[in-house]
Amino acid sequence: MKQLLLAVAILSLFANCQNEQKKQTEQPNTKESLTQYVNTFIGTDGPGNTYPGAVVPFGMVQLSPDNGLPGWDRIAGYFWPDTTIAGFSHTHLTGTGAGDLYDLLVMPLNSRFTQSLPKAAGYRPYSTFSHEQEEARPGYYKVHLQSSGIDAELTVTPRVGFHRYTFPEDANSQLILDLGYSLNWDGPTETHIQIENENTISGYRMSSGWAADQRVYFVAQFSKPFEKTQLYQGQELVEDNTTKGKSTKFIANYATSEGEQILMKVALSSASIEGARKNLEAELPKWDFDATVKQAEQTWEKALNSIRIKGSDYQKELFYTNLYHLFLTPSLHSDVDGQYKGADGKTQQAKGFKRYDTFSLWDTYRTAHPLYTLLTPDHVGDFVKSFLAHYEETGLLPVWSMAGNETNMMIGYHAVPVIVDAYFKGIELDAEKAYAACKASATVKDRGIDEYMEYGYIPFDGKFGNHWVVSMVMEYAYDDWCIAQFAKALGKEEDYRYFSKRADSWKNLYDASTTFIRPKDKNGKFLSPFVAKEYTEYYCESNAWQYFWHVQHDIPALIDTLGQERFAQKLDSMFTYYPATDDELPIFSTGMIGQYAHGNEPSHHVAFLYNHIGQPWKTQELVRRILDTQYSNKPDGYCGNEDCGQMSAWLLFSAMGMYPTNPANGIYDLTSPWVEEAQINLPNGKIFTVKTENQAKEHPYIQEIRLNGEVYTSLNIRHQQLIEGGELVFVLGEKPVQ
Amino acid sequence: MKQLLLAVAILSLFANCQNEQKKQTEQPNTKESLTQYVNTFIGTDGPGNTYPGAVVPFGMVQLSPDNGLPGWDRIAGYFWPDTTIAGFSHTHLTGTGAGDLYDLLVMPLNSRFTQSLPKAAGYRPYSTFSHEQEEARPGYYKVHLQSSGIDAELTVTPRVGFHRYTFPEDANSQLILDLGYSLNWDGPTETHIQIENENTISGYRMSSGWAADQRVYFVAQFSKPFEKTQLYQGQELVEDNTTKGKSTKFIANYATSEGEQILMKVALSSASIEGARKNLEAELPKWDFDATVKQAEQTWEKALNSIRIKGSDYQKELFYTNLYHLFLTPSLHSDVDGQYKGADGKTQQAKGFKRYDTFSLWDTYRTAHPLYTLLTPDHVGDFVKSFLAHYEETGLLPVWSMAGNETNMMIGYHAVPVIVDAYFKGIELDAEKAYAACKASATVKDRGIDEYMEYGYIPFDGKFGNHWVVSMVMEYAYDDWCIAQFAKALGKEEDYRYFSKRADSWKNLYDASTTFIRPKDKNGKFLSPFVAKEYTEYYCESNAWQYFWHVQHDIPALIDTLGQERFAQKLDSMFTYYPATDDELPIFSTGMIGQYAHGNEPSHHVAFLYNHIGQPWKTQELVRRILDTQYSNKPDGYCGNEDCGQMSAWLLFSAMGMYPTNPANGIYDLTSPWVEEAQINLPNGKIFTVKTENQAKEHPYIQEIRLNGEVYTSLNIRHQQLIEGGELVFVLGEKPVQ
Repeated sequence: MKQLLLAVAILSLFANCQNEQKKQTEQPNTKESLTQYVNTFIGTDGPGNTYPGAVVPFGMVQLSPDNGLPGWDRIAGYFWPDTTIAGFSHTHLTGTGAGDLYDLLVMPLNSRFTQSLPKAAGYRPYSTFSHEQEEARPGYYKVHLQSSGIDAELTVTPRVGFHRYTFPEDANSQLILDLGYSLNWDGPTETHIQIENENTISGYRMSSGWAADQRVYFVAQFSKPFEKTQLYQGQELVEDNTTKGKSTKFIANYATSEGEQILMKVALSSASIEGARKNLEAELPKWDFDATVKQAEQTWEKALNSIRIKGSDYQKELFYTNLYHLFLTPSLHSDVDGQYKGADGKTQQAKGFKRYDTFSLWDTYRTAHPLYTLLTPDHVGDFVKSFLAHYEETGLLPVWSMAGNETNMMIGYHAVPVIVDAYFKGIELDAEKAYAACKASATVKDRGIDEYMEYGYIPFDGKFGNHWVVSMVMEYAYDDWCIAQFAKALGKEEDYRYFSKRADSWKNLYDASTTFIRPKDKNGKFLSPFVAKEYTEYYCESNAWQYFWHVQHDIPALIDTLGQERFAQKLDSMFTYYPATDDELPIFSTGMIGQYAHGNEPSHHVAFLYNHIGQPWKTQELVRRILDTQYSNKPDGYCGNEDCGQMSAWLLFSAMGMYPTNPANGIYDLTSPWVEEAQINLPNGKIFTVKTENQAKEHPYIQEIRLNGEVYTSLNIRHQQLIEGGELVFVLGEKPVQ
Repeated sequence: MKQLLLAVAILSLFANCQNEQKKQTEQPNTKESLTQYVNTFIGTDGPGNTYPGAVVPFGMVQLSPDNGLPGWDRIAGYFWPDTTIAGFSHTHLTGTGAGDLYDLLVMPLNSRFTQSLPKAAGYRPYSTFSHEQEEARPGYYKVHLQSSGIDAELTVTPRVGFHRYTFPEDANSQLILDLGYSLNWDGPTETHIQIENENTISGYRMSSGWAADQRVYFVAQFSKPFEKTQLYQGQELVEDNTTKGKSTKFIANYATSEGEQILMKVALSSASIEGARKNLEAELPKWDFDATVKQAEQTWEKALNSIRIKGSDYQKELFYTNLYHLFLTPSLHSDVDGQYKGADGKTQQAKGFKRYDTFSLWDTYRTAHPLYTLLTPDHVGDFVKSFLAHYEETGLLPVWSMAGNETNMMIGYHAVPVIVDAYFKGIELDAEKAYAACKASATVKDRGIDEYMEYGYIPFDGKFGNHWVVSMVMEYAYDDWCIAQFAKALGKEEDYRYFSKRADSWKNLYDASTTFIRPKDKNGKFLSPFVAKEYTEYYCESNAWQYFWHVQHDIPALIDTLGQERFAQKLDSMFTYYPATDDELPIFSTGMIGQYAHGNEPSHHVAFLYNHIGQPWKTQELVRRILDTQYSNKPDGYCGNEDCGQMSAWLLFSAMGMYPTNPANGIYDLTSPWVEEAQINLPNGKIFTVKTENQAKEHPYIQEIRLNGEVYTSLNIRHQQLIEGGELVFVLGEKPVQ
């Protein structure tokens, strides 16, 4: 009997412990590692086009495995279903549809692998691998190469890739650096390798692809002196310690003992070999691989710590992986000494800031940039300085720039909303120069802007042609509104009036008979026939349904075009009018809810428009539905290209119950948070916490909002309110509050 | 109560039915389809190097999917772990380590796929696919191409590949025939395409690879008239209806409706375009795809029906897949009119026989050819005639010939045992010519044979060098024994004595001090130092352990070298002396049991040697162990290259309890069958049945054998006994009978 009582006592004790434990984890645990929730494989399957390799936040080097196969699916070098690894290259784009970069492929080889290769020369070795023998976390990637038995590990500093290869015993182990390797749009134009001494090589890889003039200078150090080396120019062995050509290759040969590790550091620069050498010396003078992994991990812990959420493990995995993706771009472009390859092709010097590039602005101006502004305004300051450097180098702000090149991909001058948003949010910048840059970009006689200025729209039969002309007008009008606000703040009244007028240009294409934004010819006649749901040349990766809502800056006026009632009906139709089964949808129209395409950017703000017509419960329903159906923690976890942080930023804002419907007016629409709690650790040291009461999957509807303990009746919140810190409580319930 | 009784009655009835059913399937069901047991994916993973595509027995066309990646794993074009398909090419080698063929790649494309491709020119489209959307059976292959949504189906006649593509609706569907596609050792030298009319093209693909001069002429017909076509020479569009160059390509364009099927017939010839056209007209004049699939399937049913076994489904899957692989080579090489490309480069005419090629004789003389002789002697007659044609064309019998080329791969003149075996088994052949061919091949001043004749062995320091010289002597000696028997039968007494002496040559390399066959120099001094287990240049893909037993023709003399007791000990060591963990094993030394390597051919007869020293239970144990551990019904079901039927033949013979230890003396060693029963339907109309009593996994040991009801005390059986028909019953048990 005594024993039994004791047992009951122990059980009770245990039960108490468990409750205690549960209670503790219900509070955001400020000590808990956040990198553990990042799954870098999310987005590597399906259309996500992300890569799983090693990178630090906004880093210059993205050291990641390459399957070695071309194709849209493999834009980021790595596609989850594939089973081959051709090596590890140092630069990758994240989430895009543009097949460029893939610089400096490193591949280890040995006898076992070589024996398995065809005997004819010139074949690339493709090792097989298995996801069961693969491991990745922020700043670290590891894979077992089955064809050789070699383990490959990767980590990075901002500008240096760090490799560790663990070899089986073999007399003929090799490390190959292949500058000829290219994929998709990328192709080397001139490459060069110099063997400097027994464990150092240097050189460059000039290439032309999506970035027409990309330059990667490098210095590579090996932890073990070369036992024998080979240099190649094309297929030809070079009898010298230097080689130059379109396609060059270096091979370091080693006899390795069982389990022997050989390390390799590859520093990059867009400016010069000496720049790469300085980067190497400054960032990675030692050979401590594990310490570098730890350092990268800590950098990520710090970055992810900007928001601490409470929620399920699934929610944490999704939230932190998306936060991780948000911080992958823009990419650092300048060396430790500030030098970089300018967009004018000259070597430039960044003074007092870090030059960044890889600006996918058509995507990221919407949600990603407002989030950077909230979480890491110092970076935004450097982004704006980088825009202005680009402006000084080329005379215009970047459209879609990367690696010191303007690619002229997509449309709009969306550096403008980023600059204007930064300006109004108090980020330090040279306002007059910034304004001049905005104005220059908005008035250049190019990109259809001259016709836009002449007609108030771009006629589909004008000299510019019909390509995306309707979308251009919609986006130019939005950017013009931003310039107008900027002009007003700077006291430029005339410009304010001018750009305010241009901001109404979308009205010039509004067709009341169809209630759509419709292409117009030079004579002001609408295109006919016209089918709104069709994907035609006039709309950028979209149709007339998706672009109708594209008036982020003047939602009341847009509502007025139809009247509130018909507008509400049309908005309902947007989410219920599905494409017919035989409608041909383009590759980017994915994540469909009716005509809404979450897989591409033009739709991204549309679910929040219900807040503006007094039906906020529909926003609340829809946002939850999108979060639940268009994202997952599987490798194919994105319904479209991740797009340099934009798809992630949508999830992050929405999960916290807010969204910058107009990305440059400093106002966030509110909706019901998806997570239980989110604590934003603001860079000014303050904390803004979003809390929920009665949070549940079946409780999507806001019943009441309290800000700092007071009932809050507005359905939006201003940026200024957030950065003062505070607590926003959402009381949720299962019934909409009408 | 009534109802309950009724239910019981029904249940009983059902139980009876089931028993009845079971009883029926316990008898070999002569009506049961055998193709259902063939899993054409076995061997496509691991080192098997088989392909899963469509082929008929011994067919000229092997129409099979290509992953489009190079490498040893992908020698047969397709590797199970891969997820890409680059297209469907018409010729493939099965189970080899030689990367050649891959002629005439066909790939369908459409807008969806094209949109997903990099914009730069010249990229090969790789579709992804999933094994869940893939289907294959003898003579038929189907896959869903995920990147385009197109379904591809393949079937064949002997000389014609038949494609059926099911397209989604699309204005820009395409069928591409790419003559520039090559892989591994293969490379086109000149290709040509001519658009003949609105649905026919013809041309050729000359290539050089493992086969130095391979010629594939073709005529391709499309079921739907071309709507638009493009011809390419390299990357250049050709404005003509004909093109010629190293790399040419044809594109047929179509607007397809949803589910529209376009078919394509591609007839091959090694002789001429007109030959291909005749093949097409003779074999596949119509467009009935389903009927062709059925016809191919029936051809396979008939071929597989040569042996009907009783056993588990697992055993049937393994047995019939291996029987399927046995019948994939040799490959038909002559056209319907008898013309073919001779090994002399001239167009030759086969009169009264079909010319075959792809003779992997070093592998297949051991087990595959004796099995062809048993199951399909008519083919063997044509194989021998093909050897003699090759002899007439080149002055020598083939060593490893394919596509009208001598590749000189591997060693021996192993066409000799095939010829001699055929001769003694009564297959009609021109004995005098065949003898002359054997003798010529055995006395040519090449391949080390001159030194072999001079020294009685090939010295490792002689003019021939050291490459595989020990193995050559062992194999030459065996082949010489075959010639000696042939000479004797033809009354050539002098030759008989001469070749009988040469058959003893292995004794010249026997080293009594180490009890191994050991390399010797010109002065008769053995190589020193010498480590028997090492894989060195002197032994062909093997070591001294594996080649010691290589005296298939004189096992008593081999036993005498050591005396029976020490021989038995050494044989035990062969299966128990495992390589040390740090021993470097070459790529072909796999399937290790001690020093025994089931993954390569030199070991294949060794387990049966116990029958020759009075320890047959060890053969019985070992053969079961090899069957249970070195084969499986998984894609990586072979422990080494399948080798054109040889690995399969080993399983087939062994599973039936017999093995041709000396492949040319018409005697089969007996061991315990693995299957419950095997009924060999002999071509002469008789049936020889192997039956077991007390068959079980834990009953590997023969207790008694009965032949046609009489106790049979011998441990071997003669070919003549088999082909007379009869019944051989093995009574099995769990204890060895000593």
